[in-house]
Amino acid sequence: MKIAVLGGDGFCGWPASLHLADLGHQVLIVDNLSRRRIDEELGASSLTPIASMEERLAAWESVGGAPMRFVELDLATDYEGLVDLLRTERPDAVVHFAEQRSAPYSMKSPRHKRYTVDNNTGTTHNLLCALVETGLDAHLVHLGTMGVYGYGTAGMSIPEGYLDVEIVGDDGSRVEQQILYPTNPGSVYHMTKCLDQQLFAYYAKNDALRITDLHQGIIWGTHTDQTLRDERLINRFDYDGDYGTVLNRFLMQAAVGYPLTVHGTGGQTRAFIHIQDMVRCVEIALANPPARGDRVKIFNQMTQTHRVRDLAELVGRISDAEVELVPNPRHEAAENELHVHNETFIDLGLEPTLLEEGLLMEVEDVARRYADRADLDKIPCTSTWTAAQQAGVPASRAGRTAPTTEPTGGIVEHSA
Amino acid sequence: MKIAVLGGDGFCGWPASLHLADLGHQVLIVDNLSRRRIDEELGASSLTPIASMEERLAAWESVGGAPMRFVELDLATDYEGLVDLLRTERPDAVVHFAEQRSAPYSMKSPRHKRYTVDNNTGTTHNLLCALVETGLDAHLVHLGTMGVYGYGTAGMSIPEGYLDVEIVGDDGSRVEQQILYPTNPGSVYHMTKCLDQQLFAYYAKNDALRITDLHQGIIWGTHTDQTLRDERLINRFDYDGDYGTVLNRFLMQAAVGYPLTVHGTGGQTRAFIHIQDMVRCVEIALANPPARGDRVKIFNQMTQTHRVRDLAELVGRISDAEVELVPNPRHEAAENELHVHNETFIDLGLEPTLLEEGLLMEVEDVARRYADRADLDKIPCTSTWTAAQQAGVPASRAGRTAPTTEPTGGIVEHSA
Repeated sequence: MKIAVLGGDGFCGWPASLHLADLGHQVLIVDNLSRRRIDEELGASSLTPIASMEERLAAWESVGGAPMRFVELDLATDYEGLVDLLRTERPDAVVHFAEQRSAPYSMKSPRHKRYTVDNNTGTTHNLLCALVETGLDAHLVHLGTMGVYGYGTAGMSIPEGYLDVEIVGDDGSRVEQQILYPTNPGSVYHMTKCLDQQLFAYYAKNDALRITDLHQGIIWGTHTDQTLRDERLINRFDYDGDYGTVLNRFLMQAAVGYPLTVHGTGGQTRAFIHIQDMVRCVEIALANPPARGDRVKIFNQMTQTHRVRDLAELVGRISDAEVELVPNPRHEAAENELHVHNETFIDLGLEPTLLEEGLLMEVEDVARRYADRADLDKIPCTSTWTAAQQAGVPASRAGRTAPTTEPTGGIVEHSA
Repeated sequence: MKIAVLGGDGFCGWPASLHLADLGHQVLIVDNLSRRRIDEELGASSLTPIASMEERLAAWESVGGAPMRFVELDLATDYEGLVDLLRTERPDAVVHFAEQRSAPYSMKSPRHKRYTVDNNTGTTHNLLCALVETGLDAHLVHLGTMGVYGYGTAGMSIPEGYLDVEIVGDDGSRVEQQILYPTNPGSVYHMTKCLDQQLFAYYAKNDALRITDLHQGIIWGTHTDQTLRDERLINRFDYDGDYGTVLNRFLMQAAVGYPLTVHGTGGQTRAFIHIQDMVRCVEIALANPPARGDRVKIFNQMTQTHRVRDLAELVGRISDAEVELVPNPRHEAAENELHVHNETFIDLGLEPTLLEEGLLMEVEDVARRYADRADLDKIPCTSTWTAAQQAGVPASRAGRTAPTTEPTGGIVEHSA
């Protein structure tokens, strides 16, 4: 297949591109290199050393990989460039990773909020428009998030995108309906993925675009089979307060002998998936497109759930580090349960990499190996969710709606 | 109250501004005058003669109206200008009409789709960001549409924004939840109002913004108490295929002796409200803001429902015109039922203007009076919803998802 990977320079896009190329697909990477510019803006960088795109592509060929091409293009602002690209390349599938993916970054300032909405919504809508304009029947696979799911109920597992409900009529009659799962995003970033969902649903309905949306949990792990083949192919390991996912922060803190900082009580339960499983899921999704005229296919792309404090304890045990509770910068429920349906990928052959099996390798081969590159000042999250928090007032006293914490609550928020 | 009316030069914004000024509020109109530029783009114009903003404001003062001020500003692109305006003016309330509001216009081309999404989503998000950045606790009243409502069920009236559902747990237990009504927009324009809803829900939750969203039916009528006071105050009467609402098209066709063209079977049932009632609803909404920390207040702003063919027959009887069925340019259900809850406004004192009472005045005082200004070539709707329709293939044969037409269906689409 000819596959355009939008955002193919990023944390998920790069290993997915390598994996797809390794499977024999013709891969075209499209990226505006924004993730590298954000590193400069934040004065942060990946713990692992990231080669330039030119070096990455050359290294891949030097280890025998099928050549990949790269086009630098800003999809949110260069619509004509996107249309030209689709017309010229005519990909069979487009994998869309080209979004700003950090929740804390999306909350830093009005500029960051607006950038995240304009970039993510703009890119998604441009892509949908361009597919319609070119008449290209390419399968669009989008990286979404588990964070789009809103309300849960006790004992209910989060379904794969669509929720069965009963609606009571004026006369007391009941009708069953299947609806897009109601959203309740936890940040501006997560909100953009909810907007994406609406865009996908509309364009699948009106223009019969074939779309798969992957509701992904928090990625952990750094290496895939392909990124391990040469150090110049290595993937990002972000540990800063904005882009570092929760597990990476713990690993980094452990590697440099700091206490593991848990936000709030650490009672937040989150869904996780290893990066090797992520690239496999993209492969599986591409092999199982919806038919023309179908509604959007939605897969839950996660393999395990863990409480944040359990993660901290696990990392602490492996690396002999202490756990410390710090105030939560987010506006969210302190504790939640989380059960998720992920049968689609399991039934299609995904064999999960379990945290208990892979964690030690992360500590030894990544965090400790590159620890001398770490900038410890970058670990704390300094982005806050509200003006009151910024001024030092706890969220609970700022007069805002309390996050849902009812005992039946199962609010999911993707800790990007 | 000090009220900023965003989009105060438009079809709803102008009469609302006059009405609020007449009530004694200090009104600041903010508009980029885009509606006038779109007239030029389409080579169309209002049947009624629209004075320049300067003439409008002068005319209002000349009939004794309390002075209103006007600022020309593009809210979607000039965020800093918006922040400065809020900081300087510190309005108590902001009424947000500043969106591209035609469904056919939003479907004309990729450029029109992208403009509608960028303009509407950009303006709404800029406004929300700016309210948070300035810390201004202004009540935001937004003009939404009945078109955001998705699926209905037999015998169920559309509630005011939120739907009670029962969710069945893994163990068979049932939990009642109230969710934002699932959306199923019928055009890119309607989709933007669904995106707005998501933005409002998030910012009300995270930043305790006080927001009211008015889910409006199709406006009919031209005059309000204030626009009648001087011809230079007259409101728009759009009859072209893009901006003319269904009733205005019929009135115009009748006035010039053309058959009234009904799309499809005319079995589409729509919600309507007279423009005089619209301005009263805005007044009532402003007087009943949500509290800080409340969820978004949603009111259904409509007073009657009518089938399109019944409307045509009514206009035909009054004006002795014939009714003609033509192919439907939209991708929608041919027939639907529609029952809507609108008790909030009725309980708060709204006294509806009924179609049966006001229609004759529209025929005589507007359509016939200005008929010599009509450009008959502009009446047909030439925008199509899909590429296949554009190529002359009926929607039903183009392999796309059929619109929901189940007997229980109550899909609502706002015919803007």
